[in-house]
Amino acid sequence: MSKVLKYGMVGGGPGALIGDAHRRSINLDGKAQLVAGCFSRTYEKTLQMGKELGIDEDRLYENFEEMARKEAEREDGIDFVCIVTPNNSHYDACKAFLEAGIHVSCDKPLTTTLEDALELERLAKEKDLLFLVTYTYSGHVTAKNIREMIAAGEIGEVRTVMGEYPQGWLAEEDVTGNKQAEWRIDPNLSGKTNSLGDLGTHIENTVYQMTGLKVKRVLSKMEKIVPNRKLDDNSVVLVEYDNGASGVYWTSQIAIGHDNGLRIRIYGSKGAISWFQEEPEKIFLSKLDGSNLEIHRGHGCIYEKAARYQRLPSGHSEGWFEAMSNLYSSFIDCLVAKAEGTFDESMIDYPTIVDGIDGVKFIEACLASQEKGNVWVDM
Amino acid sequence: MSKVLKYGMVGGGPGALIGDAHRRSINLDGKAQLVAGCFSRTYEKTLQMGKELGIDEDRLYENFEEMARKEAEREDGIDFVCIVTPNNSHYDACKAFLEAGIHVSCDKPLTTTLEDALELERLAKEKDLLFLVTYTYSGHVTAKNIREMIAAGEIGEVRTVMGEYPQGWLAEEDVTGNKQAEWRIDPNLSGKTNSLGDLGTHIENTVYQMTGLKVKRVLSKMEKIVPNRKLDDNSVVLVEYDNGASGVYWTSQIAIGHDNGLRIRIYGSKGAISWFQEEPEKIFLSKLDGSNLEIHRGHGCIYEKAARYQRLPSGHSEGWFEAMSNLYSSFIDCLVAKAEGTFDESMIDYPTIVDGIDGVKFIEACLASQEKGNVWVDM
Amino acid sequence: MSKVLKYGMVGGGPGALIGDAHRRSINLDGKAQLVAGCFSRTYEKTLQMGKELGIDEDRLYENFEEMARKEAEREDGIDFVCIVTPNNSHYDACKAFLEAGIHVSCDKPLTTTLEDALELERLAKEKDLLFLVTYTYSGHVTAKNIREMIAAGEIGEVRTVMGEYPQGWLAEEDVTGNKQAEWRIDPNLSGKTNSLGDLGTHIENTVYQMTGLKVKRVLSKMEKIVPNRKLDDNSVVLVEYDNGASGVYWTSQIAIGHDNGLRIRIYGSKGAISWFQEEPEKIFLSKLDGSNLEIHRGHGCIYEKAARYQRLPSGHSEGWFEAMSNLYSSFIDCLVAKAEGTFDESMIDYPTIVDGIDGVKFIEACLASQEKGNVWVDM
Amino acid sequence: MSKVLKYGMVGGGPGALIGDAHRRSINLDGKAQLVAGCFSRTYEKTLQMGKELGIDEDRLYENFEEMARKEAEREDGIDFVCIVTPNNSHYDACKAFLEAGIHVSCDKPLTTTLEDALELERLAKEKDLLFLVTYTYSGHVTAKNIREMIAAGEIGEVRTVMGEYPQGWLAEEDVTGNKQAEWRIDPNLSGKTNSLGDLGTHIENTVYQMTGLKVKRVLSKMEKIVPNRKLDDNSVVLVEYDNGASGVYWTSQIAIGHDNGLRIRIYGSKGAISWFQEEPEKIFLSKLDGSNLEIHRGHGCIYEKAARYQRLPSGHSEGWFEAMSNLYSSFIDCLVAKAEGTFDESMIDYPTIVDGIDGVKFIEACLASQEKGNVWVDM
Repeated sequence: MSKVLKYGMVGGGPGALIGDAHRRSINLDGKAQLVAGCFSRTYEKTLQMGKELGIDEDRLYENFEEMARKEAEREDGIDFVCIVTPNNSHYDACKAFLEAGIHVSCDKPLTTTLEDALELERLAKEKDLLFLVTYTYSGHVTAKNIREMIAAGEIGEVRTVMGEYPQGWLAEEDVTGNKQAEWRIDPNLSGKTNSLGDLGTHIENTVYQMTGLKVKRVLSKMEKIVPNRKLDDNSVVLVEYDNGASGVYWTSQIAIGHDNGLRIRIYGSKGAISWFQEEPEKIFLSKLDGSNLEIHRGHGCIYEKAARYQRLPSGHSEGWFEAMSNLYSSFIDCLVAKAEGTFDESMIDYPTIVDGIDGVKFIEACLASQEKGNVWVDM
Repeated sequence: MSKVLKYGMVGGGPGALIGDAHRRSINLDGKAQLVAGCFSRTYEKTLQMGKELGIDEDRLYENFEEMARKEAEREDGIDFVCIVTPNNSHYDACKAFLEAGIHVSCDKPLTTTLEDALELERLAKEKDLLFLVTYTYSGHVTAKNIREMIAAGEIGEVRTVMGEYPQGWLAEEDVTGNKQAEWRIDPNLSGKTNSLGDLGTHIENTVYQMTGLKVKRVLSKMEKIVPNRKLDDNSVVLVEYDNGASGVYWTSQIAIGHDNGLRIRIYGSKGAISWFQEEPEKIFLSKLDGSNLEIHRGHGCIYEKAARYQRLPSGHSEGWFEAMSNLYSSFIDCLVAKAEGTFDESMIDYPTIVDGIDGVKFIEACLASQEKGNVWVDM
Repeated sequence: MSKVLKYGMVGGGPGALIGDAHRRSINLDGKAQLVAGCFSRTYEKTLQMGKELGIDEDRLYENFEEMARKEAEREDGIDFVCIVTPNNSHYDACKAFLEAGIHVSCDKPLTTTLEDALELERLAKEKDLLFLVTYTYSGHVTAKNIREMIAAGEIGEVRTVMGEYPQGWLAEEDVTGNKQAEWRIDPNLSGKTNSLGDLGTHIENTVYQMTGLKVKRVLSKMEKIVPNRKLDDNSVVLVEYDNGASGVYWTSQIAIGHDNGLRIRIYGSKGAISWFQEEPEKIFLSKLDGSNLEIHRGHGCIYEKAARYQRLPSGHSEGWFEAMSNLYSSFIDCLVAKAEGTFDESMIDYPTIVDGIDGVKFIEACLASQEKGNVWVDM
Repeated sequence: MSKVLKYGMVGGGPGALIGDAHRRSINLDGKAQLVAGCFSRTYEKTLQMGKELGIDEDRLYENFEEMARKEAEREDGIDFVCIVTPNNSHYDACKAFLEAGIHVSCDKPLTTTLEDALELERLAKEKDLLFLVTYTYSGHVTAKNIREMIAAGEIGEVRTVMGEYPQGWLAEEDVTGNKQAEWRIDPNLSGKTNSLGDLGTHIENTVYQMTGLKVKRVLSKMEKIVPNRKLDDNSVVLVEYDNGASGVYWTSQIAIGHDNGLRIRIYGSKGAISWFQEEPEKIFLSKLDGSNLEIHRGHGCIYEKAARYQRLPSGHSEGWFEAMSNLYSSFIDCLVAKAEGTFDESMIDYPTIVDGIDGVKFIEACLASQEKGNVWVDM
């Protein structure tokens, strides 16, 4: 295994936003190079994309099963695969590569059922493979710093959490022509939830990554607000954590004026932290003595475990790509260490399959609560 | 009745914040003059306060019953009374003045039981008296402007509302020496709720004043977070309005970093409005086309029905006193019109006893929901 | 002299914004009562205004000379006069009352020539009278707190100051129908400067009140940007202070988007402070260690010498009226102390005639610099 | 010439921030691949860096002259060179590659004398080579959008510009151990100016890119504030543009609390625009009617000529790397078009050698103004 790893991609064909975003994020650090792909169910599109990306034709595959098998056989096969297909094919694709002994990075939400998620975990353990679930937002330097601040006791014990993730892009009934919108609001393609599955899991995971708190039970209210919508487009979840603290999670796609408004506010016994992913270079910290601090990435107040991911000085803004890049950076470092025999679990600084499973559990509990009339449901 | 009205005050003795605040708010416009008072249960304190305020000693009373009776008998008796006592004596004091035929202004929450509130309403009607309930925040020019914007259809139909009112002043267990805090957390003085009764009713009323929407049912979760606290200090209420729209109200007194953070966000089918009472000179308006506007009090975008309350040009900040003053301003204008025989109900531009009753209903429904295990309760 | 003082007003007739604002500001505290006036050059308007304000007709005067003489003769004459006429009559009005032995409050800029200002100072000293110049913005609790912070060395030695006061209300050539605008841009009424005289003096005084630094020399560039304008509507002044520090002052009336944007940023050897008058409840403090603090009025971080002016808890916004009120509050306290024989100069906590004189000097130096081609001119 | 270009780098050795930043920025799009380098004057460091970056050893050079010559001779030689050395070697390095017929990207400020800059321009023209000067900030999508907004007349004619670029990192006298700081404040390494040369040129260029206005004359005041500093660390420049508009540029390295605070405010006859590079996803637009808009990258209000550079939807923050990447993106597109014979000058959407020359002229005029005692100096 050389220092620059080789990776393959499943999904991310011509025009696909998320595949492109993963490729750029990996490019940013140059720690891995794309050498194989099955970018689409249509082979012509895979060929087109592969050519654009300069990949040898013999490593462009008709389907992911073939790709998994052939790459596993090659002397110079890929070190890991990056799966960025629609959610309903995550399970099959992940399974194919795990069975072939190839490390996996997969987009969230991990699977459409808890059973599938647990099976992937079992497989990964059995094969001793690493598994990254790409919850982007925990990758921000400021998000990592909040984790360190809370672990260090800066705000005391966490008492209550207000998490929200409003967007406004589905506020209108007619979404004709917007492919992503058409897909999102169609139960055949999206499954049983839209806003909660897409956005709620990000809140759940970001809060967990920051605080270490696991959700114990939920009471959800999932609404279909826009006329003729078949899946939730605005949802509220009351949560209770394992330490007894409480939380409220709000997700919306009809909240006009919000672009991608993931915001986490954590109130503890000694202080409070506020973080807004659209301004990811800042942390707000309030203390009992009435002081309110604005902490900037890059300036003294950043812990080493967060600071090590910085690429630019303070005031030179890092954003979404860097957050995603940080996940891959740790994942790849772990892969290299594994190959060199120096890996241990404490090196892992990215969301793993356990985060993926928790996300699926969270969705299932919320769906049950809604079905039963907004009552408490244990995770 | 001369143009400058005469008023009396019950409560608001030496050191009392809220009585002082009401007096200053009324002073600001000079539309009414304080001429009588029963500022305390202790007569010496009433005398002391009356002297400080330059009130004739024969209009300083030992108790409010005497004050109501004697002022009603005087040729030059008070035109209205301002009641700023602790909540548990609102009912008795209001009743005394209504029965004596004197118009009433009373602090919120109106009473401790719905029955009492309804009785006051009955009395006011019977005697044909006006009744102001001083929900301060609806008095801001910007709050009034939001009402006009929504009524004019600027954001279409209201779909969901996020209301929050976090404070941080009760985050610590030990509140020894802070009189207001000691009173607030004591069930003997505060009744059955603390944060929800004090702050939640402000959210409920401000949303109503802005949108015209009445709450139809609630699901509340009232928490006692600080160790040894006997009343809720952090609460969340899911609400449904009569038009089918939904809402979430969060109140807290343990949210470190927040001073007096009443914030209302209203999402409609065509746009969204955000308003923050700590920055009461601004309105944020977002539209479907992606535009986000910051509207400043005093600048073109303000409706006449809101603009008429302005005292200063834009950029010359108006604040809390002006908001309270605006309530009294309309109340006094109505009293003058009533005396002159020109009054009609459409002139009323302040929260009335109906708002007061709705607040009490809201509290009772939330308490019932909490008691039954966080279930839906109709208003 | 009773505890509630009596005052008279010159100027502030029907429709006049600034007279109304001064009256409300004094009302807010109830420390003085308006009992006499000469509100206009037109006696009918004085009568009308006096009636509205409930003033006895025998204390409504045809001109300020008569008012000064007669009030001085009365047993119950006014304790001070409040002069809010256009700038060009400040001198004559102030002189009349000082000569009559009556304390004076006068709007800024004090006079149109330095000679006049110095004559008023001489008179006030001779008669042992107090003199308030109503530079509003130094009255904010936060402004006073900044003064204490800097005096306490919180930001070390002041090195450079960026002051700006942009407004946008004169951006259009045609101002027909806007009386204040018509007056402002007319050299016959405004004198030799418009933006710099009106706004620049506020920067100069606010910086002085905060830092104690006096301007030593200036280099100004005064521009007439809007077509056909005869006076400066956009100006920049480079300044040097007596301690060697530097500054830049920008004033504008053509800066679209700004309402009343006085902003002061003070950079020292150990920290920096930023303050914005449109959000007067906050102070921003940055330190060498990279920490950035937002200090709220009403919260722990406020010095007693500033905190004593607070009327409301943090988060209950105070604004422009309260700032003006604070000037009068200290002025009246000093007058009472003077009457009681307990006054000493250290009690003065408001801008005095010395501040007024400095403002006039500053304007004259800027005019000279502009005339000579933007060169340095000593104060 | 294939679609993925080949480039080489001069400078950017181990630990060098700016070389690393350029490499990552180019990586982000994958339009060019690094294949050759002379990363340091010390060949061992070049070898080390080259190895880390996976470059063939026969394309790692001892000096740039050798690199220019050998790469020009190769069939598969580099398509362009990226020069990120200290300023004083820009001229020699650029010259070597231009003479060898290789396109050049060079960091700003371009050269240390105007003569050198003009010679490079002559050479580039003679050889028909493209030349990118990497003024990062004009690359932001929002910066490009402002250019389109102004060109479309959205704010009318530009009247005055306030540009500032404060930093706080050199506020302390002792900078021992901070290599970049040591270099910056040393006249032997930095030349005749520090803050103005480094930061002022960014203001000058960003304003030009946004407005199209060229500076006609300047009046500068360059200060050495920190004790024992030999070069300016705080400077103000009054400017006049070719259209008669005015401007003020402030640069500082002693402004505690500022990280990298480039802020441009442009006031026109119909509106005003404000832009802050630390929050590069937003544009603030104010109009005569009192409306204030916040425009977000990615949302409707963005012109096609700016929008085409977007990689992520609104709310998924792009930052510094993307801005730099956008410069290279247009530069590389032009190189490809040139190779394919489809190039014309209207395709250029990056700062060229003309921008570089203007920067050098600006510095020279400011130095002259300071030397002559803060007087106007023509460009």
